[in-house]
Amino acid sequence: MGEFELIRRFFASAACATGGEGIALGIGDDCALLQLPPFDQLAVSTDSLVAGVHFPLDADPYLLGQRALAVSVSDLAAMGAAPVAFTLALTLPEARADWLEAFANGLCAMARGCGIGLVGGDTTRGPLSLTLTVFGRVPAGQALTRAGARPGDLLCVGGSLGDGAGALPLVLGERQDNSAQAQYLLQRYWAPQPQLDLGQALRGLATAALDISDGLLADCGHIARASKVALLVDAARVPLSAALEGLFSREFALNCALAGGDDYRLAFTLPADALASIQADWPEVAVIGRVEAGQGVHLLDASGAELQPPALGYQHFGSQGD
Amino acid sequence: MGEFELIRRFFASAACATGGEGIALGIGDDCALLQLPPFDQLAVSTDSLVAGVHFPLDADPYLLGQRALAVSVSDLAAMGAAPVAFTLALTLPEARADWLEAFANGLCAMARGCGIGLVGGDTTRGPLSLTLTVFGRVPAGQALTRAGARPGDLLCVGGSLGDGAGALPLVLGERQDNSAQAQYLLQRYWAPQPQLDLGQALRGLATAALDISDGLLADCGHIARASKVALLVDAARVPLSAALEGLFSREFALNCALAGGDDYRLAFTLPADALASIQADWPEVAVIGRVEAGQGVHLLDASGAELQPPALGYQHFGSQGD
Repeated sequence: MGEFELIRRFFASAACATGGEGIALGIGDDCALLQLPPFDQLAVSTDSLVAGVHFPLDADPYLLGQRALAVSVSDLAAMGAAPVAFTLALTLPEARADWLEAFANGLCAMARGCGIGLVGGDTTRGPLSLTLTVFGRVPAGQALTRAGARPGDLLCVGGSLGDGAGALPLVLGERQDNSAQAQYLLQRYWAPQPQLDLGQALRGLATAALDISDGLLADCGHIARASKVALLVDAARVPLSAALEGLFSREFALNCALAGGDDYRLAFTLPADALASIQADWPEVAVIGRVEAGQGVHLLDASGAELQPPALGYQHFGSQGD
Repeated sequence: MGEFELIRRFFASAACATGGEGIALGIGDDCALLQLPPFDQLAVSTDSLVAGVHFPLDADPYLLGQRALAVSVSDLAAMGAAPVAFTLALTLPEARADWLEAFANGLCAMARGCGIGLVGGDTTRGPLSLTLTVFGRVPAGQALTRAGARPGDLLCVGGSLGDGAGALPLVLGERQDNSAQAQYLLQRYWAPQPQLDLGQALRGLATAALDISDGLLADCGHIARASKVALLVDAARVPLSAALEGLFSREFALNCALAGGDDYRLAFTLPADALASIQADWPEVAVIGRVEAGQGVHLLDASGAELQPPALGYQHFGSQGD
């Protein structure tokens, strides 16, 4: 099968190639063309996923397609951007129609859910890996960066943490478990839902934001450095899902939440007077600490004493979130 | 060495991370932010290069960096877009400082030459491959697509063809040659110059355009299909460099030009009355044929009789140009 036919057959389907408002020209020319409203900025992020590093070689292709896009779109959520389009560079050892169809179906299901359209890509023979580049739009000056946290702000997260890390033994087949709790963790791992609406609602309110991919404490370190402040995290306030607490010890569950990564929930800093309006629409938003003058990330127990942090977030050779 | 330090050390250098007008936020946050003039469109293209498929495993990293970016930027030239920014996803078996430094120097040299800035990326451990996504800007409605060629238009190319294909035996070490002619071909292979100024000058004049990556005849097929016309190519008018003709037989040189690929020159269709103004600034632009009603690409000899085309352009599993 020729390369062009491959690409057309699986990825140029109308289901996947329509999407975000702002696609002036999609797949099939030297470039795609995006047209933003005047004075919007374009948010751009690139992530690679490599078989054997970021996912098992025999990963279910439907789940892989779904997850790969979700992980990338989460970076748009973290900037407060609305999704527009994405490109996919896919390197495959062989062109297997069943694999490609399942992968495309998973990818397109997530694309439809996020309202983002595939506008181009490249398909190459080689060891299995994917690189996605996602595009979003945000009014000029309103993007959420990591650099604006101020002493006095609250430190918040967009929901329970640690589910992705808790799912890893199940994903890797090291643990068999068909319980509803295990299924919940697997769903959180394979189909994380980028917090797009929350990110856009935080425009003009949050002073700094990112999505948690490397682990809460490691990612809070990015905000602390960029904003030149200290972040204080109250360990007891970090939200954990019932599934995670049901399957594991409290200590292991908390370590997953603090250092595990793969959450794709937003972490953000917020002036205290903005909290009520956000929690009115997102009751799962939790305050887990505060911003002070200083530097670094400090984990505190219920009495306010500093705790030794667990091992840092998974420092693989390359980050999905960078 | 941690991933973040890697990225900072080699790729966030000021030399590479400044560039195209329109970068509102560069490397270091969840997303980069691009700000275009109101009513400009953003042109986007993604290309992967895989070791052992698109370049030799032991390729000189400086040359590889240079070439990888040039090949991608050529897609912006083909749309008539002005370069703004690019992202790099780099997968490497190991983090070798000397390799990374040379690669970054080659990449940044080409970036400076093209006026394009690195705004983000990802570095992962795995088999060597690169995926670049390039961004350019073009006033809305003025992008050059493949779809507008009309019967009566001239078929033109931006200069001599076949040098890249002619260089392959030298690149692969199958032929040793230190002559100036061989050096010229190697230079054309490792540092193709994207025809950015020509592409932008063709806005409002050319009716269709692309950059030749898969071979002249194969790429003309893309214009013929998208524009629903026939393209007639006069074999005798296809321009060949003195170096290519000096090193090879006329027949082999012409086959390189017709079917070889890796040229990264523009091919475009143009109303006859626009030719003089283009050739005044680009005397190397050559008319090689014409557009007629019908379909397909037809290769003609000097008498106008149809020739059998040589083997089609290199159909690797994935295209650099798609």
